[in-house]
Amino acid sequence: MAASAEIEEGTSLQPKFDADGLVTAVATDAATGEVLMVAHMNADALARTIATGEAHYYSRSRKKLWRKGEESGHTQRVVEMRVDCDQDAIWIKVEQAGSGACHTGRRSCFYRSVPLGQTGEPKLEFREGRTFDADATYRRS
Amino acid sequence: MAASAEIEEGTSLQPKFDADGLVTAVATDAATGEVLMVAHMNADALARTIATGEAHYYSRSRKKLWRKGEESGHTQRVVEMRVDCDQDAIWIKVEQAGSGACHTGRRSCFYRSVPLGQTGEPKLEFREGRTFDADATYRRS
Repeated sequence: MAASAEIEEGTSLQPKFDADGLVTAVATDAATGEVLMVAHMNADALARTIATGEAHYYSRSRKKLWRKGEESGHTQRVVEMRVDCDQDAIWIKVEQAGSGACHTGRRSCFYRSVPLGQTGEPKLEFREGRTFDADATYRRS
Repeated sequence: MAASAEIEEGTSLQPKFDADGLVTAVATDAATGEVLMVAHMNADALARTIATGEAHYYSRSRKKLWRKGEESGHTQRVVEMRVDCDQDAIWIKVEQAGSGACHTGRRSCFYRSVPLGQTGEPKLEFREGRTFDADATYRRS
């Protein structure tokens, strides 16, 4: 097969890391299908996620490998991992431990809705309240 | 509110576009929760999606705005749009017209599963067959 056909139709995992060495990772709730978060994985995070079945990411802000929940206890057990056609994105279906995936204290990072069908400045609508105390969980001042 | 608090807790849409002017966009099937595709939106694609309720993306390979389905007819009507905590990712729940979101002829781009719990080379497992003839749909030679 040609290179592109091999990537799209083959059975070999050949992640297409970007210039920063990352692929996009989408985590959904295995039970509800809700998107919990969008983050990134480098080769190490991807390999550890595959080997352990626990979600690992690469933190672009902290510039380090990050086992989800290492600080908060809100770990993610991966039920299934999928890779997309051009292998630059990973989808993991997870069982979210604890009360939430989001550092703001919510179950999902996608807690605000953007109204559609208008051309002015959209006013975001909150769809989800906090389920845990983020300040206490992450010991912020 | 401080700038970060305003972005996370405010009601104003302030997309955090990356160096290429893009945010990540995840499209899920509104009925099943399945992740159909991961793509990107620039400011124009985001504004058009909000205004029309039809999914628009920015094609990095073709370097142009792209109304999903403009060529294939496989459009996406947006049922709901969400934005994440730091506003660098968009989640749209869509009704997928036609038989698929993926240019390879499948309903979802995530048609291969990555086996977990192993450290060697993972062998991808196909989870979904083609639902349409991609060659005919896109008039390839």
